Amino acid sequence: MAGTDQTRKDEALREAGPAVILVAPQLGENIGTAARAMLNFGLTDLRLVRPRDGWPNERARAAASGADEVIDGARLFATTAEAIADLDYVIATTARSRDMVKPILTPETAATQMRVAFGAGGRAGLLFGPERTGLENDDIVLADALMMVPVNPAFASLNLAQCVLLMSYEWHKAGDATEAARIEYPQTRPATKEELVGFFHHLEGELDRFGFLKPPEKRPSMIRNLRNMFQRAVLTEQEVRTLRGVVAALTRRYPKGEGPPD
Amino acid sequence: MAGTDQTRKDEALREAGPAVILVAPQLGENIGTAARAMLNFGLTDLRLVRPRDGWPNERARAAASGADEVIDGARLFATTAEAIADLDYVIATTARSRDMVKPILTPETAATQMRVAFGAGGRAGLLFGPERTGLENDDIVLADALMMVPVNPAFASLNLAQCVLLMSYEWHKAGDATEAARIEYPQTRPATKEELVGFFHHLEGELDRFGFLKPPEKRPSMIRNLRNMFQRAVLTEQEVRTLRGVVAALTRRYPKGEGPPD
Repeated sequence: MAGTDQTRKDEALREAGPAVILVAPQLGENIGTAARAMLNFGLTDLRLVRPRDGWPNERARAAASGADEVIDGARLFATTAEAIADLDYVIATTARSRDMVKPILTPETAATQMRVAFGAGGRAGLLFGPERTGLENDDIVLADALMMVPVNPAFASLNLAQCVLLMSYEWHKAGDATEAARIEYPQTRPATKEELVGFFHHLEGELDRFGFLKPPEKRPSMIRNLRNMFQRAVLTEQEVRTLRGVVAALTRRYPKGEGPPD
Repeated sequence: MAGTDQTRKDEALREAGPAVILVAPQLGENIGTAARAMLNFGLTDLRLVRPRDGWPNERARAAASGADEVIDGARLFATTAEAIADLDYVIATTARSRDMVKPILTPETAATQMRVAFGAGGRAGLLFGPERTGLENDDIVLADALMMVPVNPAFASLNLAQCVLLMSYEWHKAGDATEAARIEYPQTRPATKEELVGFFHHLEGELDRFGFLKPPEKRPSMIRNLRNMFQRAVLTEQEVRTLRGVVAALTRRYPKGEGPPD
């Protein structure tokens, strides 16, 4: 039974994603917005090392805008070493490079590396330092790698929650199956090529009839340009029908209800 | 000369990156934090359509935390159509899919598409709606594509500035040449394999001498494990020297300054 409990605990931790460890955070607001950013991307394991204003912190809860499960589940530690004791792979976020030989990762690579750690059955975590000063070297030494966000060097001041947001976003992205680009068709479907070509023939027949596709030597390229234009629009079945209606309407000999002049 | 002026203007716009168009933003704070997020990733072309509290807005300036060039350069428009009139490719950000047939992009693909537009000599922009309600369909219709951030569906409330941050980040990333992972070597360099192997021989020779690598049939695998461990540490030249010093120190017959017993 103990084995099952352990399995359940492991699964819960796995679903929590990488731990976010805030070392000596100063403002409750930043803890709250960090918690919100975490939950936006499915992370829930928040750990606090000596938050300046103590814990719990009502300002943190307010700023979390409903990410209560992260705030309520946050754990308090006296030292960074204790906060990361159960983790296998820890990345320290830093705004400047340190005189320390460690791999320096982008948020994207950091996310991949953490996924690798998780995939191997381990647990990963992200260390963030206090707002003003960043992590101390004694904390950074405990990490396996450093992470720096490539920013505009002329304006590099990312705040704590933004940094947590970017990392959480990359973590989520690395495991996300959302298509990079897709099209949704509410109440309709993409036009088949047959429908599209049917429309082309309709249109071109009418254009021929109205003497538009002239001179003859230009006809092929004119048709190509027209077709290409509609092609690029990725029309739906409904839109093709609409366009056929437009052509039909425009090519009536006389406006509706009017006959030929007597 | 007019041509040169135009070229200069084009270049300035190009350096400004894609335009960020905030439609009817409600809170000055959000305009400010959005401006800050833009500048963090090198974007400077901010456009405001009917900001609720008017413009300029001191709360926006305060929240921008020094991103004054974005705040000062922000332009005011009465309609979305006017705000995007000079752009070639516009992406509308939205939290939910709309009954509209348009490509839906992730932030990453959106950034790539905007880079394509820029590469082709065009200008791209990102439309963001008011905090509470998002963009109206009449504004979305003007866009070439939609962008949705893949978030935790159980907690999807990204705020305006966070959304701007993610898009700006992806834009910057798409044009950024930062290596995905690198190691910096302050005042030193990676150890050559020769240096590393020299250390291995030193260590293994001493371990042999001290009878550690036994029984003989286990010797190869013990050596492999040891070497692998040091290998994985990606040692510097200096560290290899330090380790050799450690081995040398540990294998002295007697502690320093002490000779053999008389």
